[in-house]
Amino acid sequence: MTTPEGPDFSLADVAREGLIERPGVEPATHDGTGRVDLAFTVHAKAEDGSALPPTQRGVRVPPGVTVFDAASWNGIAIDSTCGGHGTCHKCRIRVEGGEVPITRHDARTFTESQLTDGWRLGCLVHATRDLAVEVPPLTTRPKAATVGIGRQVILRPALQKRYVELAEATLSDQRTDLVRLTDAIDDLELTADLHVLRRLSTVLRESDFKVTAVVLDEALIDVEPGDTTAARYAIAFDLGTTTVVGTLLDVGTGTPLAVTSSLNKQQPFGGDVITRISATMMDKDALGRLQEAAGATLAELATRVCREGGVDPSQVYEVAVAGNATMTALALGIDPEPLGVAPFVMTAAQPPSVLASELGLSLHPRARAFFFPALGAYVGGDIVAGMLATGMDRDKRTRLFIDVGTNCEIVLSDGETILSTAAPAGPAFEGGAIRCGMRAADGAIEVIKVDPHALGDDPAVTLGVIGDVEPRGLCGSGLVDAVSELVRVGLLDDTGRLVTDEAAKEIAPGLADRLARIGEERVFVLHRPTPETEVAECVYLSQRDVRELQFAKAAISTGWTLLLEQLGLEHRDVQQVLLAGSFGSYLSPASAVRIGLVPKLPVLRIVAAGNVAGEGAKMALLSVRERAGALALLEEVSYVELSDRPDFNDTFVDQLAFGS
Amino acid sequence: MTTPEGPDFSLADVAREGLIERPGVEPATHDGTGRVDLAFTVHAKAEDGSALPPTQRGVRVPPGVTVFDAASWNGIAIDSTCGGHGTCHKCRIRVEGGEVPITRHDARTFTESQLTDGWRLGCLVHATRDLAVEVPPLTTRPKAATVGIGRQVILRPALQKRYVELAEATLSDQRTDLVRLTDAIDDLELTADLHVLRRLSTVLRESDFKVTAVVLDEALIDVEPGDTTAARYAIAFDLGTTTVVGTLLDVGTGTPLAVTSSLNKQQPFGGDVITRISATMMDKDALGRLQEAAGATLAELATRVCREGGVDPSQVYEVAVAGNATMTALALGIDPEPLGVAPFVMTAAQPPSVLASELGLSLHPRARAFFFPALGAYVGGDIVAGMLATGMDRDKRTRLFIDVGTNCEIVLSDGETILSTAAPAGPAFEGGAIRCGMRAADGAIEVIKVDPHALGDDPAVTLGVIGDVEPRGLCGSGLVDAVSELVRVGLLDDTGRLVTDEAAKEIAPGLADRLARIGEERVFVLHRPTPETEVAECVYLSQRDVRELQFAKAAISTGWTLLLEQLGLEHRDVQQVLLAGSFGSYLSPASAVRIGLVPKLPVLRIVAAGNVAGEGAKMALLSVRERAGALALLEEVSYVELSDRPDFNDTFVDQLAFGS
Repeated sequence: MTTPEGPDFSLADVAREGLIERPGVEPATHDGTGRVDLAFTVHAKAEDGSALPPTQRGVRVPPGVTVFDAASWNGIAIDSTCGGHGTCHKCRIRVEGGEVPITRHDARTFTESQLTDGWRLGCLVHATRDLAVEVPPLTTRPKAATVGIGRQVILRPALQKRYVELAEATLSDQRTDLVRLTDAIDDLELTADLHVLRRLSTVLRESDFKVTAVVLDEALIDVEPGDTTAARYAIAFDLGTTTVVGTLLDVGTGTPLAVTSSLNKQQPFGGDVITRISATMMDKDALGRLQEAAGATLAELATRVCREGGVDPSQVYEVAVAGNATMTALALGIDPEPLGVAPFVMTAAQPPSVLASELGLSLHPRARAFFFPALGAYVGGDIVAGMLATGMDRDKRTRLFIDVGTNCEIVLSDGETILSTAAPAGPAFEGGAIRCGMRAADGAIEVIKVDPHALGDDPAVTLGVIGDVEPRGLCGSGLVDAVSELVRVGLLDDTGRLVTDEAAKEIAPGLADRLARIGEERVFVLHRPTPETEVAECVYLSQRDVRELQFAKAAISTGWTLLLEQLGLEHRDVQQVLLAGSFGSYLSPASAVRIGLVPKLPVLRIVAAGNVAGEGAKMALLSVRERAGALALLEEVSYVELSDRPDFNDTFVDQLAFGS
Repeated sequence: MTTPEGPDFSLADVAREGLIERPGVEPATHDGTGRVDLAFTVHAKAEDGSALPPTQRGVRVPPGVTVFDAASWNGIAIDSTCGGHGTCHKCRIRVEGGEVPITRHDARTFTESQLTDGWRLGCLVHATRDLAVEVPPLTTRPKAATVGIGRQVILRPALQKRYVELAEATLSDQRTDLVRLTDAIDDLELTADLHVLRRLSTVLRESDFKVTAVVLDEALIDVEPGDTTAARYAIAFDLGTTTVVGTLLDVGTGTPLAVTSSLNKQQPFGGDVITRISATMMDKDALGRLQEAAGATLAELATRVCREGGVDPSQVYEVAVAGNATMTALALGIDPEPLGVAPFVMTAAQPPSVLASELGLSLHPRARAFFFPALGAYVGGDIVAGMLATGMDRDKRTRLFIDVGTNCEIVLSDGETILSTAAPAGPAFEGGAIRCGMRAADGAIEVIKVDPHALGDDPAVTLGVIGDVEPRGLCGSGLVDAVSELVRVGLLDDTGRLVTDEAAKEIAPGLADRLARIGEERVFVLHRPTPETEVAECVYLSQRDVRELQFAKAAISTGWTLLLEQLGLEHRDVQQVLLAGSFGSYLSPASAVRIGLVPKLPVLRIVAAGNVAGEGAKMALLSVRERAGALALLEEVSYVELSDRPDFNDTFVDQLAFGS
């Protein structure tokens, strides 16, 4: 199979490529731009089998994401045992609005009238347009859960509960209380800490020796009266520099019960890791205050997911935290200074297991916190979690994983060797250093389409705005779209310079009047509230903004270019590019290809991977094997330090141009 | 070799038995009664080799104890590498006052003039009379230490310090700080907890990567700037129900630096374990207060030994605690109730490792506390420590270990099988339930000799009084002596009844006037301050006191009788009886034999073993092998529950009489 080379390939040529992502699935084509809205109506049953009132959830995702993944990433549980590969035929959903093709798996699974009613397998429905989706109640108590990018995880959580009924002691059976209990759970080599021993004899006798042992790995962390085996909860945290996401999980079923997010309370200390590290270097007390802020963020999310999920926080026994090396260090109160200065050294790759209470969380008093290990100072636990969620260590395809952000982490696997590196992209993607830049919040332009040949009332510039409100600024994906569209129509040349007014009038007469100046600097106006609004009051893209983006994308493409070179690979060899992280997942694949942020590949090979750090954290909670896999990545992945490479600067200069 | 049967054997007959204790040593004979005072003058050198002012220490021990042991038990260090077996010829001391025989080892070790000056090997000098002893400064940095009953412990403490000078990180060597350190200590599989990681990067950089790793087992508990390897301290605690003893140890040399003791601050809750367990059952808050009291006792002793030893408490990295099961549970805040009621079940045999700070100790913040495991609710960690210190698990002789107290623990080994049990002796040995009973404090009569044929001014009754003051009462060893002497002269018959006044006049005319009555009860007056003093105001032994002692000794002798039966052994098969604990060690062996508290054996087979629990605690701190040996005892020793035995009552009745 030949692969089209440039960004301007025909979508029809590569429609078949959808097969790479989902074996056996009819390809759902999309042009790699924009957003889709999914309106979920979720049905559920109470413990007694009676129906609960349905809940409504709205979800906004990049086009092409499957309904199953979109639901999963947002904590909406859909039956599945195959991991979203179209084989278990369990992930039944009903598409209420919008037309969705019938796959051969759907035809085998549903009756004619069900198909007419809109029933489909959720893992096969690619959301290429807005849909209303009805999710039936869970029918199975699963032995496995689907998380991450189609990862099917056999449930074997570190957290186990065992209900036992013990014989009471006699003079001829004076076994200690602990031995009496552990003899009854003889498939585990349990160890008990002091806090359990302090209560053990009382709990056993007050509950007539009928108790539930709460076990984390092989540590007996509590003994609860009676049978509490149904209550097995844990929280997965994606501890981002900007945004922190918490997911409450029932680890017995793999079901997410609630998901919520908030800004990291460390924000007042600086928007990125370097400013926060600097804060600790300036002020002796800053580390303590940053640690408290991280703890307070996690604690608030824990409280919220427990309330939303209707779970007693004291029945949450474990948390997993995926964060970059600096966020991890700060949350644990480890001095981050060496992370911020060459030679960029971590204190330890694998943080020790700590009590959740040491982080400031009020969960079960002996609940533990697992922190993901890091590969390097700038390829942290969030990336290790993301590699787990995307199966970077298992998939035999050649895949490139890019987490776009201020610090951009890049992982390349050819199915044998796995390389990782970090690229200092700077704040452009988060709206920093961009004149009209802002975070991806209400009023941010996130999608831009430009039509230089628009006629009559058709708009020459179409904006997608978060919250569908008056545009206030430009977020990262909007910035990438803007630059990409201006390159596409020729208003930006390959070197990143806005063309002259004369050239603009020739190339795109309908857009030329949007080129303006603020002082000496040329700008392209994206949104002018009223015809009278001064240019400086508009939302615009400046020449300097374009330069910022050029530097950012060059840093990133230098990273994967050098990794590709190291494995002797060409762009076309990459079978899948995973765009991860809160920004990467919302990037328009077509624009990313066009500006050279990712290799020149068909857009269907560019996959929005969602919050893979959070997904990896869930996997670590659901499976000790997956957790061991995360630790094994420390050995399996080679970290490439770019700042040490003699060819870095040459490659970087090569990558600055958009034509490269 | 035949062994005399009764208690009235000739001492000459069995003089050779001393050889059993100390191979190659000329036997020092003693009659198994009384006390000796040793006045030590201890010389020491400062770090720079200059002489420090000598210190004076007075020590009071039962006769027959070697000068080496007497010094060792009291924290006075004497050079030795052979464990007091007379082979290393290092334990040189000078006897300043008192005549001491010259052994063949002394003759080989010292010159004629040295011998004349009083130089001897300390392990061969049995203190059969008061001695003044000069101890030279330590000359060697030993690889082994002598503790317990001649146990030679190769120094391999859990606490290790390693000084390393590390290469600084570079871009081409980005190993984490932890890996950089652990790579330099590659013979250990070190793990670091969060508290170490929090400081690691700062300490490394502030000390130019020249640091000392502080290791407990394989846990890295601290990284200190520079070379601190010389400061390796630990504290051994004997946590008794009544008395608590703390010994500060330099674990690098095995040298005890200070020893001190105090009453257990739990005393206000009751004198014995049962009353303290009852307190926790009556009052919900009592367990917390008992735990605090235990911690406060240990903390005060820790402060005192550190001050006396001139050691910074933050350089004490480990403590070992040997206590009975109840003391251990209370110190750890574990509910002791099941220990106090049938079927007498422990929460756990091996308490978990805890931080010393959790006990309330202000030592190194990550200092750990090791608690000895227990064999049963009434054969606790103090006995396991005692078994370690006396080598009950290694010695191939048939030996009986008896820790005499309110609860009396008994261990019997025939060199193959080891049995243990507990006998409820009651409070008689601690002065409880005895009319004139008191603890072994100033004014307590501790030694009694009776001469029915005393003439003229010779006293018919000779009293040894603690503190050499006016007698105020009778402590346990005095009680045993009193009963033993009255049995010997015939004023008490075999059934424990004081003979009639008529019979007394015939048997012992010089003593008959000491028989009197208080109300209906007959008493024997031991001390009458003035001829006019009322009998009730005198120090006396009552008929009921004798009964109390009979019950106590019968409980104990029933214990070892049943253990002997279980192994098919006779009294004469026992090659050594070790009397342990603060009371047992001060018991007169002759009296113990005469009243039947121990098997009928020559007194030289009855050995005062000193504070073996504290010695065991020291061993656990000095050697991980010995500590493992203590844990192995849980498997090697069978616990025999006497209250479950059908033959218990019959044996008990048999053992009540003194003639049995």
